[in-house]
Amino acid sequence: MGRQKIYLDKLARTFQIRNLLLRQALAECLGTLILVMFGCGAVAQLVLSKGSHGMFLTVNFAFGFAATLGILVCGQVSGGHLNPAVTFALCLLGRERWRKFPMFFLFQTIGAFLGAAIIFGMYYDALWDFPGAFNVTGPNATAGIFATYPGKHLTLVNGFFDQIIGTAALIVCILAIVDPYNNPIPQGLEAFTVGFVVLVIGLSMGFNSGYAVNPARDLGPRLFTAMAGWGIDVFINGWFLVPILAPFLGTIVGVIIYQMMVGFHVEGEVRDRTEREKENVPLTNVNSKEASKEII
Amino acid sequence: MGRQKIYLDKLARTFQIRNLLLRQALAECLGTLILVMFGCGAVAQLVLSKGSHGMFLTVNFAFGFAATLGILVCGQVSGGHLNPAVTFALCLLGRERWRKFPMFFLFQTIGAFLGAAIIFGMYYDALWDFPGAFNVTGPNATAGIFATYPGKHLTLVNGFFDQIIGTAALIVCILAIVDPYNNPIPQGLEAFTVGFVVLVIGLSMGFNSGYAVNPARDLGPRLFTAMAGWGIDVFINGWFLVPILAPFLGTIVGVIIYQMMVGFHVEGEVRDRTEREKENVPLTNVNSKEASKEII
Amino acid sequence: MGRQKIYLDKLARTFQIRNLLLRQALAECLGTLILVMFGCGAVAQLVLSKGSHGMFLTVNFAFGFAATLGILVCGQVSGGHLNPAVTFALCLLGRERWRKFPMFFLFQTIGAFLGAAIIFGMYYDALWDFPGAFNVTGPNATAGIFATYPGKHLTLVNGFFDQIIGTAALIVCILAIVDPYNNPIPQGLEAFTVGFVVLVIGLSMGFNSGYAVNPARDLGPRLFTAMAGWGIDVFINGWFLVPILAPFLGTIVGVIIYQMMVGFHVEGEVRDRTEREKENVPLTNVNSKEASKEII
Amino acid sequence: MGRQKIYLDKLARTFQIRNLLLRQALAECLGTLILVMFGCGAVAQLVLSKGSHGMFLTVNFAFGFAATLGILVCGQVSGGHLNPAVTFALCLLGRERWRKFPMFFLFQTIGAFLGAAIIFGMYYDALWDFPGAFNVTGPNATAGIFATYPGKHLTLVNGFFDQIIGTAALIVCILAIVDPYNNPIPQGLEAFTVGFVVLVIGLSMGFNSGYAVNPARDLGPRLFTAMAGWGIDVFINGWFLVPILAPFLGTIVGVIIYQMMVGFHVEGEVRDRTEREKENVPLTNVNSKEASKEII
Repeated sequence: MGRQKIYLDKLARTFQIRNLLLRQALAECLGTLILVMFGCGAVAQLVLSKGSHGMFLTVNFAFGFAATLGILVCGQVSGGHLNPAVTFALCLLGRERWRKFPMFFLFQTIGAFLGAAIIFGMYYDALWDFPGAFNVTGPNATAGIFATYPGKHLTLVNGFFDQIIGTAALIVCILAIVDPYNNPIPQGLEAFTVGFVVLVIGLSMGFNSGYAVNPARDLGPRLFTAMAGWGIDVFINGWFLVPILAPFLGTIVGVIIYQMMVGFHVEGEVRDRTEREKENVPLTNVNSKEASKEII
Repeated sequence: MGRQKIYLDKLARTFQIRNLLLRQALAECLGTLILVMFGCGAVAQLVLSKGSHGMFLTVNFAFGFAATLGILVCGQVSGGHLNPAVTFALCLLGRERWRKFPMFFLFQTIGAFLGAAIIFGMYYDALWDFPGAFNVTGPNATAGIFATYPGKHLTLVNGFFDQIIGTAALIVCILAIVDPYNNPIPQGLEAFTVGFVVLVIGLSMGFNSGYAVNPARDLGPRLFTAMAGWGIDVFINGWFLVPILAPFLGTIVGVIIYQMMVGFHVEGEVRDRTEREKENVPLTNVNSKEASKEII
Repeated sequence: MGRQKIYLDKLARTFQIRNLLLRQALAECLGTLILVMFGCGAVAQLVLSKGSHGMFLTVNFAFGFAATLGILVCGQVSGGHLNPAVTFALCLLGRERWRKFPMFFLFQTIGAFLGAAIIFGMYYDALWDFPGAFNVTGPNATAGIFATYPGKHLTLVNGFFDQIIGTAALIVCILAIVDPYNNPIPQGLEAFTVGFVVLVIGLSMGFNSGYAVNPARDLGPRLFTAMAGWGIDVFINGWFLVPILAPFLGTIVGVIIYQMMVGFHVEGEVRDRTEREKENVPLTNVNSKEASKEII
Repeated sequence: MGRQKIYLDKLARTFQIRNLLLRQALAECLGTLILVMFGCGAVAQLVLSKGSHGMFLTVNFAFGFAATLGILVCGQVSGGHLNPAVTFALCLLGRERWRKFPMFFLFQTIGAFLGAAIIFGMYYDALWDFPGAFNVTGPNATAGIFATYPGKHLTLVNGFFDQIIGTAALIVCILAIVDPYNNPIPQGLEAFTVGFVVLVIGLSMGFNSGYAVNPARDLGPRLFTAMAGWGIDVFINGWFLVPILAPFLGTIVGVIIYQMMVGFHVEGEVRDRTEREKENVPLTNVNSKEASKEII
């Protein structure tokens, strides 16, 4: 046992990364990998088993709880965004530094790419056994396992609107969950609650185009499929731009709605109280300390 | 970063609303919007996909967890009622002021109206693509996406009874969850528990007419459909009065049942203890303080 | 508001019951009512909608979360047994007084009877509209909505064994959850955990005869159906004795298994530590106090 | 009551086992029994009812929540591994002693064997009533109720890879949940979170061969079926070696991925801080104490 401990300690020291941003980006990469591996894995199971081992509900559950697990794995290190839209929202509100945004976006996309690759490897035999292996369109298409494609009924405008609404709904709920002035749930349950948000979005907003609401989750696997055999068709009709661009617009909408209807008022109330306290500082020093505690 | 903070601070000060009642009503509006957006969205997904992307169970999950998320978003500000029947129950028991009731009812209905509008916009293409677009009755009716309509087997009397039982069951469970003398769950989990209540009501009481058990959730979307193209038919046969009136009767029934079988006794026990303590005040002052702490 | 408070206070004093056992029995009655109302309601929804509004999984969810809600409503008052087998297990282990057993059994059965009556009223129209209304056997039987009946493949011996295993599994899990020496979950989550136990039993042990595992849950609704129109046939072939008698045998089996494999050892370890401490009392009085705290 | 207490106390003293390792092994045995009883029970219900009382999703739920319940029953005593791969991972990281590994493996396999036996007994009539009773292959095979068999499309190489990925995913998530330097969830919720991990693995990685990811869960029931009437065919084509060997390889992969991407860095950060503190010990003794508290 003693020798093992020493050896493990040596390993730990060798591979330890001390750069905080890189460490956080790596954690985001692993978290997004888990999200996409489990989420796209459930789509693969549904499609390749022709419905015997899954249905749309199981995909919703898988994406929801995969988000929970991804956040649990990396949340303590990087905050567990798993989604450039979430990083963007927190930057907009001044809670994360802007320089994190490109780094996180890159590593989240890499994580999603790797997650798709793992599922490809896992279901390699099943894919070759499937009639429509490597089809992007048609009734036996398999490209939809990895990236999202619009339903037949969907126009590009409505698709754009769909992604904006979906992301706005996601961001409003996430902001409520992590708002420092409005903390409604016990610490440690944020990951579970975000999982429920993703689950509910899938239950009610998944019919149009499959609820990407996450540029990295869609772009990474799409790039993988382009390289793994589905080819350039995965960028068909320019749809791929919608789940990259619309979520950022949706984030702005979501931030505005939440702040206008709840956020500014809760924050303002706390600020009002603090300012009142500050005026009383010379008189009652002790009180002001208590008040600031209360606020934190 | 510095400039962003200043700008955000300015925005916050500009839009901050200081009137408590209005702030609470706005929060209720957003919470009910979320409830109806996710809930009716799941019905839309089920109906418009003809069952490929949903089933009755997914609607139950969506309404249940949508209630959870709606409460999380607004609970710290307004208590997270999302339902005039809940506000009514708390007013009946003297835990909320009566003047909140009309204000909350109005804003909850507005929120439900807006939630329905968002889903209408999101599934606009899918709706036009659907054979029975804008039908209120018949096998391809779509009005049921937004408001509730009675099943073929249901008489008006049984429908009334159905809504009374459903709401009474909801209120009994909610009163148990929020009873200050009988607090069975860790703080912060109320929203999740209420979500389970709504889920279970859907699983077992949804067959007759779709478990509205909430006047605002039914009236808001019904008004929206009347304006958005379904027309005056949505008020067919006077059914629309049932989910507006019956829930308030159900609330009264639920309050009486819970108070008679659990509430009065738990409350009474606490009061008995306090009174016993009060008689001992002159003798043992310290004890009485401890006892009152215990009670709180 | 002032007048309302006075009126409410008067009401509370009038209806307050001061007898603890009666209060607890009433609470058990309400809890079991909720369990059966939601649980049998889900079966009714499944059967009467011919599968369009439910499936076996929704029944499992409903019974599981109905157990959670029933426990939440009455748990603080009576412990939230909802099941004579649970009361019996706690009496066997000396954690509840034996005189509670008949009282709880009676009121749990009354609660289950009333829960069945509510569902009967709620789905009265749907029942009359159903081809097999008031049939006890045959493909359109509806008696199974309320009480359990054996599957075609099941012999009486295997049915007895089925109920023994099911109840033993329930009791092992519940004992682990409430064991004072082995408290694995945060306080306040017991109700949710028991709900998961009931859910899992339904998922894996429901095919033979519908997992009653609860004499009150089966007897109450069966008596109701006998009176409400299904008649004496509900006692057909003596099956009704199985879910009354077998659960108590299963309780004994479950208590023995849990105590032999986990309970006695955890308990013994604590006792060993206490005894060691007691011997040291004259020497280090302070230590022994700390140890006893630790144990509690 | 008094006499009952004395009798119970005598029983407890008679059957108490004082050997810690044996006690832990017994607890693991009971926990794995519960996992396999509920999990394989759900498969039995699905197969024997020909889908009327189950679907693949119910099997996923059953295995997930059965893992939760198994961990709750034995977690306080033995840590609640239920899986030799988990024990192996913790030994690799020096968190459990290596001598526990063979003992736990043995008792987990015995528990899985007994769990399968209970389900066999419970569904004995249903099994004889089923057309393919005691078939190992073919459309009506029942051997898959107990142990896992590869899908038609699966080659041995891909099957090996499938078990490696599944176990690696399980181990990454479990390590994140129990990492002492990265504790993301409130104490007491580990069991629930592990249940979600098992659920998600089933939702997304169950199509190839049924996600054993646990040598004991597969070997125990397979041995039981070999003895109970399915015969030597259950070892057909050498597949049985895959779920015994591949999970250990997967464990190594999972440990490396988690440690490289998250574990070493979190651990290192804590070590860095401790070392910095140690250097300051002679100067500021009080501070160092506080820091070490913080770390723990």
